[in-house]
Amino acid sequence: MAYEFKTIRRVEFSETDMAGIVHFSNFFRYMESAEHGFYRSLGYSVILKQFDPQLGFPRVHAECDYKKALRFEEFVEIHLIVREKRSRVLSYFFRFNKVDEKGANPQLIATGLVTVVCVAHYSDGRMEAVPIPAALAEKIQAAPAELLAV
Amino acid sequence: MAYEFKTIRRVEFSETDMAGIVHFSNFFRYMESAEHGFYRSLGYSVILKQFDPQLGFPRVHAECDYKKALRFEEFVEIHLIVREKRSRVLSYFFRFNKVDEKGANPQLIATGLVTVVCVAHYSDGRMEAVPIPAALAEKIQAAPAELLAV
Amino acid sequence: MAYEFKTIRRVEFSETDMAGIVHFSNFFRYMESAEHGFYRSLGYSVILKQFDPQLGFPRVHAECDYKKALRFEEFVEIHLIVREKRSRVLSYFFRFNKVDEKGANPQLIATGLVTVVCVAHYSDGRMEAVPIPAALAEKIQAAPAELLAV
Amino acid sequence: MAYEFKTIRRVEFSETDMAGIVHFSNFFRYMESAEHGFYRSLGYSVILKQFDPQLGFPRVHAECDYKKALRFEEFVEIHLIVREKRSRVLSYFFRFNKVDEKGANPQLIATGLVTVVCVAHYSDGRMEAVPIPAALAEKIQAAPAELLAV
Repeated sequence: MAYEFKTIRRVEFSETDMAGIVHFSNFFRYMESAEHGFYRSLGYSVILKQFDPQLGFPRVHAECDYKKALRFEEFVEIHLIVREKRSRVLSYFFRFNKVDEKGANPQLIATGLVTVVCVAHYSDGRMEAVPIPAALAEKIQAAPAELLAV
Repeated sequence: MAYEFKTIRRVEFSETDMAGIVHFSNFFRYMESAEHGFYRSLGYSVILKQFDPQLGFPRVHAECDYKKALRFEEFVEIHLIVREKRSRVLSYFFRFNKVDEKGANPQLIATGLVTVVCVAHYSDGRMEAVPIPAALAEKIQAAPAELLAV
Repeated sequence: MAYEFKTIRRVEFSETDMAGIVHFSNFFRYMESAEHGFYRSLGYSVILKQFDPQLGFPRVHAECDYKKALRFEEFVEIHLIVREKRSRVLSYFFRFNKVDEKGANPQLIATGLVTVVCVAHYSDGRMEAVPIPAALAEKIQAAPAELLAV
Repeated sequence: MAYEFKTIRRVEFSETDMAGIVHFSNFFRYMESAEHGFYRSLGYSVILKQFDPQLGFPRVHAECDYKKALRFEEFVEIHLIVREKRSRVLSYFFRFNKVDEKGANPQLIATGLVTVVCVAHYSDGRMEAVPIPAALAEKIQAAPAELLAV
């Protein structure tokens, strides 16, 4: 049973804006990328082709609180923490820490929240919320409350 | 005194993802673009070069609730509504409506919130929260409550 | 028979990078967007769902020459010119002109080239180069040579 | 004296488009990211703050030839090869290979070219082409011709 996942990435030039910092919209891309890494760490892709109909996890809510600027070539650790698991819904909390080249000396840059719903993609284009498949759901659990404190 | 701004844009191919819909992170770019249009409608650019030190409006919070998918070549109206005006802070509510080619028949796709802080950019790189300049602040007011209902 | 298309857009904040100018990769998004506008001006979407199997125009070549910087809130006119029409292939030349608010006083910023191939998307995922459908091909012609001079 | 650099990245969801493949514009971001990795491998950042006036490498030309599609979660190796070194100009050739999880079994996906110019950024905003500083230039050389064959 997993309830967290960490990944480190380095800020790319194309992710910055003319204010000299990472454009705020990219924090949402970073969150999504960590979420996909989390599924892979459990043996699944976000595109659950193993299932028929094919399953996916569209977002119904996303938010981010920005505390400090993040700049080109800096390292940022994205820490995904499972906030809530329901039958059809997963909610993630994220902590963004700027870290040094060794992944040490974390400095809080931002926090985020994303809520996704498990949906079936039918061949006629329809989407419908469905329960998260047991094989995946049984590998995920909500994190202890202390991990979720900002 | 203005408290709202509307703009319509057409979804571009590069804004979609492999799920066939607008990538969720692009709704944040759409919100920012509407915000800049709002400032321009008041005679200002988001880059307030008229002021010394130069002023800017970094985001401290952004969120979005996704209700329906938005697809390539569809028209989306972004309706910015001023939710709160404080000395150094502006908060915006956004309503995304899919509309037809004439801008009619709105269908709610998503809602959003963005909070920005007015900061001074000093020549040594420092940033500091400062009051919104009076010349701009006096043109903006919070919207009537009924406009903010989802 | 059409051989050109013009569209004007305004540079968005999220399209800039920390050098204070439009990130070079966005010129390719601008070209694609103009290409889609060109198809629409002929009554077609780039997603040719009218045809069975569904047709599309993936790129096989794209290039851009950058002459001057383009900045936030500036207006840029993208001028698409049909360079070559073959049975399965279309090649476009692009001229990027910075213009003023009235679309006047053009200043050359960049030029580009894109070559696309008409492909059929079969239901089993296979793609195959096929002739451009006559209904579309007969509306497009190569531009006079003088339009293609840089 | 270095004339090449390799880096592997995994395709992210936000880099795909509704055709189910990596959007063609992202290959240019991939090239730029490899170029920056190359400079770092030589002990420099693309933002050459060590020098006064500060130096940068804006692009004057970029192109890409697309041979096969690249998809979500696939690994792509970007192989940068120095094609030409002149006093103020560097030209890079790129080979994109799809590889497996171990970085093996390369399959050619695309090739690219980028030409950059060394410029000085003066404090008054002016930019001027200048010679690449000796400390960096002496670490870079053009690759043997056989490496540049497609």
